[in-house]
Amino acid sequence: MLNIAIIGFGKIGSGVADVFAENESVISKKLGDTVNIKYILDIREIKNHPLSDRCIRDFNIILNDPDISLIVETIAETVPGSTLEAYKFTKSALEKGVNVVTSNKAVVAKFGAELLKIAAETNARYFFEASVGGGIPIIRPIYNCLAANKLNKITAILNGTTNFILTKMSNEGLDFDAALEIAQENGFAERDPSADIDGIDSCRKICILSSLAFGRQLPPEKVYAEGIRYITPDDIKNAEKIGCRIKLIAKAEKIENPDAVYVIVAPMLVPRNSPLYNIEDVFNGIVVTGNVIGDVMFYGQGAGKLPTASAVAADVMDALLKSTKNMMWEVSDGSYVSDYKKYPAKYYIRAEVDPNVLKPDDLNSIYYLIGKTFPDADIYESNNSKELFFTVHISDDYKFDDGIKNLSDAGFKIKSKIRIL
Amino acid sequence: MLNIAIIGFGKIGSGVADVFAENESVISKKLGDTVNIKYILDIREIKNHPLSDRCIRDFNIILNDPDISLIVETIAETVPGSTLEAYKFTKSALEKGVNVVTSNKAVVAKFGAELLKIAAETNARYFFEASVGGGIPIIRPIYNCLAANKLNKITAILNGTTNFILTKMSNEGLDFDAALEIAQENGFAERDPSADIDGIDSCRKICILSSLAFGRQLPPEKVYAEGIRYITPDDIKNAEKIGCRIKLIAKAEKIENPDAVYVIVAPMLVPRNSPLYNIEDVFNGIVVTGNVIGDVMFYGQGAGKLPTASAVAADVMDALLKSTKNMMWEVSDGSYVSDYKKYPAKYYIRAEVDPNVLKPDDLNSIYYLIGKTFPDADIYESNNSKELFFTVHISDDYKFDDGIKNLSDAGFKIKSKIRIL
Repeated sequence: MLNIAIIGFGKIGSGVADVFAENESVISKKLGDTVNIKYILDIREIKNHPLSDRCIRDFNIILNDPDISLIVETIAETVPGSTLEAYKFTKSALEKGVNVVTSNKAVVAKFGAELLKIAAETNARYFFEASVGGGIPIIRPIYNCLAANKLNKITAILNGTTNFILTKMSNEGLDFDAALEIAQENGFAERDPSADIDGIDSCRKICILSSLAFGRQLPPEKVYAEGIRYITPDDIKNAEKIGCRIKLIAKAEKIENPDAVYVIVAPMLVPRNSPLYNIEDVFNGIVVTGNVIGDVMFYGQGAGKLPTASAVAADVMDALLKSTKNMMWEVSDGSYVSDYKKYPAKYYIRAEVDPNVLKPDDLNSIYYLIGKTFPDADIYESNNSKELFFTVHISDDYKFDDGIKNLSDAGFKIKSKIRIL
Repeated sequence: MLNIAIIGFGKIGSGVADVFAENESVISKKLGDTVNIKYILDIREIKNHPLSDRCIRDFNIILNDPDISLIVETIAETVPGSTLEAYKFTKSALEKGVNVVTSNKAVVAKFGAELLKIAAETNARYFFEASVGGGIPIIRPIYNCLAANKLNKITAILNGTTNFILTKMSNEGLDFDAALEIAQENGFAERDPSADIDGIDSCRKICILSSLAFGRQLPPEKVYAEGIRYITPDDIKNAEKIGCRIKLIAKAEKIENPDAVYVIVAPMLVPRNSPLYNIEDVFNGIVVTGNVIGDVMFYGQGAGKLPTASAVAADVMDALLKSTKNMMWEVSDGSYVSDYKKYPAKYYIRAEVDPNVLKPDDLNSIYYLIGKTFPDADIYESNNSKELFFTVHISDDYKFDDGIKNLSDAGFKIKSKIRIL
């Protein structure tokens, strides 16, 4: 009998117990042994659950029980201070040589390199397949299967909540608040949805993928992350006119000379020829680009209790069997992250003409003024008849902001400014 | 220095040498050592290659050299007798405890279970990530990352050549022969294209995936495989009318009671809501369904010299580092494979009305006769004005064939009969 403990018995933690119960036959067959959840640690009282009698409040009971060879760390990331607490528990377990499996992206994004180093020293396993993409296999495939590649780029939809909201807005013409409400009613968004809709969740996930792909810790605080609150139905309809859908994109790209990584989380217009264009609803899609493999994409439901729990359970099996070794990347403060504003980009700009400065029907002047500031702009009629929108390539965001300012001075009210992938 | 040998120096084998040369820095860093290709075994003389001096003709030189800890087996599958030869080489290497990495789907599909058993006994690694999906990570993700699932189903586009041909037919209105010629001109189809277009390649690949997912060897000769030669531009246009694209689909599904596996390779109409609908050109897409994960899809270029070679190279690194353990499934003669004809399906039927028997404009009679045989048929106008097509659910192919015969007797010339996914 293999004894394990679960710390944090919320959605994912209790889901892990469910998966072990539901799929006991297949899991025991592969392990050649049964798994026993000996302890459950949670700050709340767990009532009316078949495992209620396993509940404890003191982590040291787990740490000091020589029967426990593995801890599942599924502490909720939303509770203030929980990341540091989860980190401390993980660290003390790994230092004792106890395996830890987690879905906690906040801990891996911030402390991954350090914890993997400790695990390597004590020959414990520290696995975190569930931290990105829910149940979609992505961590191990990047690290093992694509190992012979120089990885260049990761471009991904990593947050199901925002993708659901944007899909609803697009398909039903809803505004952001109405779509968010539906997401909340369906259990796809939290009551306090900011971690999802402000890009914090995507940011942590791209940090883990970037650390893994490029070999150095990427601390989340080094990443510019923008959410989707400001996206309007007009933006979505305008995007459709030029063959695009708006998605919350997380992107990390290796820059060679000088050695750096460009990384960003922001809503972007995704063109139809991108494999991410068709990723709808709560699904995630992760495109990994390597120098010999080209593009490969991983697709599936990126969240949800059971899919995520199934990835945790697979890691538990793997760690108990010691089937695969730990991953590894270097500790870093992220000073190698490049200034995201100094990166060529293409933008979509929606603007209203200020009737106090310009006559809205004086198209020649309008086209002249935009063209003067952005010579390669393509100008379109907006879904909203009082507005227009244009697309433009830029080499540098600082110069671009100057250009936008010039346009504002000339009588354009800039309403939206969204990157194009 | 880690000494390896490559046996079979065709497209993939020479690609492996290219990947090791091209990405030497990243590979050596991860291995902590350099890889030396000490021997190349090929029946042809390898001229004008930087490694020409490594060429030998006698496998025993490799087998008896204690420096060689790993053999890359990339023998071409098209040469008659090569599968058996590759199998014998692999077996004798594994018996001596020498690791083997292969892209040879014919060998894995036929002898996988036996070879994995030998590898387990001698603690050698036998890896074959490149045998399915080219460079797309799929073997390891199924086996490790989805281990806590009861896997139910694999539905996949596994052959880039046929997908390219069908995409060309669809986008440019070409017939099969013209599209095949373009595929050959672009190097996407062999001069003798039968392994691809008759479904043999897809069949071997679904056998490997099924063996892996369901834990028992699936010998290719147990699988009904149908190719795409008979697909016409009319079929493709008719499919579009009902929101479908025609793809060569490989499918394996677990049946619980009695314990069996349904498996088939055949062209199918893929509806727009399937993630496989958007897999175009030479790309592959593999949808894996598990009881807790739901659907996950893996997508990328499923063939090509360097992508496939990069998967071999990653396996070489993994085997040399012993980072992951071998996979395993049971030896079986495949007698558990169910009769594919006794499986509910939905069909698309294109038919011409025989003017000697029926008046082609007597629509009432036509609808009556079809409806009499297939009460739930939906009937449509065909792209070809002399024809019509209909879709129908069936519970059993034997009964269906009887129904088709009744229609033929009543004056319908059945031109196409294609499954709907």
